[in-house]
Amino acid sequence: MIESTQFSQHISRQFNAELEDLRQQVLIMGGMVEEQLADALEALIELDGKKGQSVIEADIKINAMEVNIDEECARILAKRQPAAGDLRLIVAIIKTITDLERVGDEAEKIAKMAVHMAFDLDNEAQPQKSAFSAVSHLGQLVKSMLHNTLDALARLDVNAALNVAKQEVQADKEYNALSRQVITDMNTDPARISGGLDVLWSARALERIGDHSKNICEYIIYLVQGKDVRHTSLKEMEETAKKQR
Amino acid sequence: MIESTQFSQHISRQFNAELEDLRQQVLIMGGMVEEQLADALEALIELDGKKGQSVIEADIKINAMEVNIDEECARILAKRQPAAGDLRLIVAIIKTITDLERVGDEAEKIAKMAVHMAFDLDNEAQPQKSAFSAVSHLGQLVKSMLHNTLDALARLDVNAALNVAKQEVQADKEYNALSRQVITDMNTDPARISGGLDVLWSARALERIGDHSKNICEYIIYLVQGKDVRHTSLKEMEETAKKQR
Repeated sequence: MIESTQFSQHISRQFNAELEDLRQQVLIMGGMVEEQLADALEALIELDGKKGQSVIEADIKINAMEVNIDEECARILAKRQPAAGDLRLIVAIIKTITDLERVGDEAEKIAKMAVHMAFDLDNEAQPQKSAFSAVSHLGQLVKSMLHNTLDALARLDVNAALNVAKQEVQADKEYNALSRQVITDMNTDPARISGGLDVLWSARALERIGDHSKNICEYIIYLVQGKDVRHTSLKEMEETAKKQR
Repeated sequence: MIESTQFSQHISRQFNAELEDLRQQVLIMGGMVEEQLADALEALIELDGKKGQSVIEADIKINAMEVNIDEECARILAKRQPAAGDLRLIVAIIKTITDLERVGDEAEKIAKMAVHMAFDLDNEAQPQKSAFSAVSHLGQLVKSMLHNTLDALARLDVNAALNVAKQEVQADKEYNALSRQVITDMNTDPARISGGLDVLWSARALERIGDHSKNICEYIIYLVQGKDVRHTSLKEMEETAKKQR
């Protein structure tokens, strides 16, 4: 564990510029992922198969960003041999972009469900309106979690990161209620099983995006406080966050 | 990108010992995860709720190992400032343990489905025998993928890593066939919807474990060859592997 929470003094301005550039790239990647999620949700709710297709096609750009940022991190680690806070920043970035890339994958999955429902299912096979409204509600919540996560990352704000962890509890609740409802609908009206599964998979993807956002927030707390809060309770996380300088 | 694929000469024996210890810890963690997967599968196939419970309880140990290894990586990065191959080894380990921990999470999910089916569903609600046999077959394949991944990691064997990527194609096929079959069963016999969903979630978890195994194999190729093969085709991966020295 690295003891000091103070960012180390950088030897050169050039190094500072490199780190700042790296941070910017992560935020740009985050913005792209946010957009993918928003588009995938729109495609799903409006059963817009064409929009779904374009989300699927755009995923490749996010994959490329992940590889580029990773290489830049390896380059900086090798060339600058950073210590303390700078080192933690780079480790946190390596982990963050893995989660961001997987958020992109989940958005792609939602888009695939949208395409399937839009193109392959007729009216009677599509899920109930109430299911769409529940998935839309969960989608808004998860979108805000991802947005708050990127905000917390931009401002290295431990309290904002902690709030995302709190939102995740709510997302889990909504996901469970939605699942129960859709399964009941499937039982009542077996013609809707296929569409119901699309909604369930989409909701599961949203729940996972919530998990990834929470993961990133844990890296932010680790980065700022130097304490690993993964697999700890919300209460322990709060106690760690309180120690923020 | 780091050019040299030769492992750098270590300044001290102590450092060598630290790296070797780190590698051992990752393999021990991998062994634990393998065991969790085997137990979760057994619980699922034999509808052994008690065994499922014990898998759920054991997940905490894997989480703790991830945090410990991560801290050890950060400590070594800070203290030893490794370059080239050593640096790649540590970056690969940081990524590998994230995937291993998530394999543990997926095993836990399978165990939860086993507990649900064993304790909450009566005979008529449980999935068809054919579904169990398909999920068992997919389970064996994914178990062998994970095992081969850990082997490839222990021996830093690029060809073995490549074989796992090939197995993943087969796992995807089996997963898709299984999904179609279970959805058909649910349509024919709506009483089995709840149990069918348990099987679908379990199969999805297995498919993800296959994905995580493949991720780790990509890190192995990166580690040995110094080339990032994520998001490339199987053919490109093979070409990279051929260049193995």
